[in-house]
Amino acid sequence: MSLHPGKMTLRFYPYELKLAHTFTVSSYSRTTTPDVQVEIDFDGYTGYGEASMPPYLGHSTESVSSFLSKVDLSQFSSPFMLEDIMEYLDSLSDSDAPAKAAIDIALHDLTGKILGAPLYRIWGYNPDKAGPTTFTIGIDTEDIVREKTLETAGKYKILKVKVGLDTDEQMIRAIRSVSDLPLAVDANQGWKDRSKALDEIFWLKEQGVVLVEQPLAKERIDDTAWLTERSPLPIIADEAVQRLKDIPKLKGAYSGINIKLMKCTGLLEARKMIAYARAEGMTVMLGCMTETSCACTAAAHLAPAADFCDIDGNLLITNDLFKGMIVRDGDMVLPQGPGLGLTKL
Amino acid sequence: MSLHPGKMTLRFYPYELKLAHTFTVSSYSRTTTPDVQVEIDFDGYTGYGEASMPPYLGHSTESVSSFLSKVDLSQFSSPFMLEDIMEYLDSLSDSDAPAKAAIDIALHDLTGKILGAPLYRIWGYNPDKAGPTTFTIGIDTEDIVREKTLETAGKYKILKVKVGLDTDEQMIRAIRSVSDLPLAVDANQGWKDRSKALDEIFWLKEQGVVLVEQPLAKERIDDTAWLTERSPLPIIADEAVQRLKDIPKLKGAYSGINIKLMKCTGLLEARKMIAYARAEGMTVMLGCMTETSCACTAAAHLAPAADFCDIDGNLLITNDLFKGMIVRDGDMVLPQGPGLGLTKL
Repeated sequence: MSLHPGKMTLRFYPYELKLAHTFTVSSYSRTTTPDVQVEIDFDGYTGYGEASMPPYLGHSTESVSSFLSKVDLSQFSSPFMLEDIMEYLDSLSDSDAPAKAAIDIALHDLTGKILGAPLYRIWGYNPDKAGPTTFTIGIDTEDIVREKTLETAGKYKILKVKVGLDTDEQMIRAIRSVSDLPLAVDANQGWKDRSKALDEIFWLKEQGVVLVEQPLAKERIDDTAWLTERSPLPIIADEAVQRLKDIPKLKGAYSGINIKLMKCTGLLEARKMIAYARAEGMTVMLGCMTETSCACTAAAHLAPAADFCDIDGNLLITNDLFKGMIVRDGDMVLPQGPGLGLTKL
Repeated sequence: MSLHPGKMTLRFYPYELKLAHTFTVSSYSRTTTPDVQVEIDFDGYTGYGEASMPPYLGHSTESVSSFLSKVDLSQFSSPFMLEDIMEYLDSLSDSDAPAKAAIDIALHDLTGKILGAPLYRIWGYNPDKAGPTTFTIGIDTEDIVREKTLETAGKYKILKVKVGLDTDEQMIRAIRSVSDLPLAVDANQGWKDRSKALDEIFWLKEQGVVLVEQPLAKERIDDTAWLTERSPLPIIADEAVQRLKDIPKLKGAYSGINIKLMKCTGLLEARKMIAYARAEGMTVMLGCMTETSCACTAAAHLAPAADFCDIDGNLLITNDLFKGMIVRDGDMVLPQGPGLGLTKL
């Protein structure tokens, strides 16, 4: 137990994530994701953190490195000063959520290791309630979609499908031809007309879809409220919600929120967002970017407090750096080691 | 570190708190407060908790004992299952917040001891930001009010005054005749007319008052909203807010909330309430009942996350059972021991 003052040191290095499949959503395709790995040392312990930067979000290896270079953790007496440190990071810039999340994750790993307990335990969660994660099927040709879906047989309890193109119906039918698992769909703001979206949602419900993420452009709050009021499925905000302060204005417009560490600056804020959403009766979904098992495991530690989890980013890359949360019979199994519980590969 | 399964055992005994001064608020007076002390054992550790039952809240030694007798903690594998255990307690009854808080506090003490760290550290708070607590001056004759106020000289940075009777102005003038400390006032729903209340609040501001608690009856949400809109001082909900689910309906009507462990079922829910209030830009105040240093120290561990603290319940009794948080030069000093950090007296 290191409760005496000491200095933290922060290191980071860029790491390019290689995707198992070319990733296609409604707006673009890619085969790699830029990423920065973070390590914070304190009193003989090392905490691991990570920033993942899907290019469409406006962050880059350069922007993350530039932010991390400005951070001076030596002014804080211990990694347990989480509230103060995150407030300090927010004072450095209004943006840079992935870089802030990397530090938040590393500090949580570090403090968990010092306390000698896994994060879920420190937070009072029952790890047996981590539950299933969806596995994402990207937009592709019908043959490849069928093939990818068949690969998931017996491994997952729920699939997530990217929709929002003219090919939505083909995609769903291709999956349905080989699987009867429940589906979550993510339109990534891809639908343009609210009435057509509502018709599609009714059809999707018949196809065994259980939730819809970000159907319309994030700015279209009123149209989304119109849709949510009439939708037979929960409508979840993704692009429309980044941090705690964004949730109040979404009430009524969405049934719930998708919390991602790379959007919200990390675990400290994510836990506050969960508390807020619960008080408002909103559905809580946890998501991720393509990430190593470092950030995915961090998110998975929150899973017992969520309704739906889409934490498959580590399963979609071929060059993971860690072993952490694993999926067994479709359910997430949280590691029992202290902090994040990661093993370096 | 006891992460392996084991059985928790729960003990409790009634304990009558003796008040240093007869306590008078707008509706009644008393010289004692009924209280129940709780101890939970697990794997060689003991966690301390407490239920305090000021009679006007409808709880009693009997109701708390009856609830605690029904609780079976042996079904939980460890005291770290905080979310599951608190959900279970809520399944046993809709009421009984003090008894639930006693268990919540004991479990937090227990898990903190097992982790070997004080609660504020586990939560990521900076203990140097615990800040001042108000010290409460009860309603009494002018002579006694002056005497009580003089006793506080040099010991506190802010006083709290119970108002809501015809004697408000006398009370304030009596205090002002011997002290120029900032004041918080608590009307305990005692004011009847909103316009008169507003006039009084303007006068109180001139007298150096910095906040007003529960000016009108808790049911009068619209009148309180009228008052808050016009008030030059923050208006804090006390009787109007018990738990997390109560806050959404108070938005706009109050500037902030007074969170008390005995109202909200304990620390787990209190932390969620703080997160919610912050997201809504509401002022966070922490309060207490007359309590030993057990429950007061539990509340004090949350102090770094609060704007105002009124955690003086342990200072108002003559038969404390513990040493925990102390007040030095008006500021709360959190104990450094694990869990609550209590020493039994």
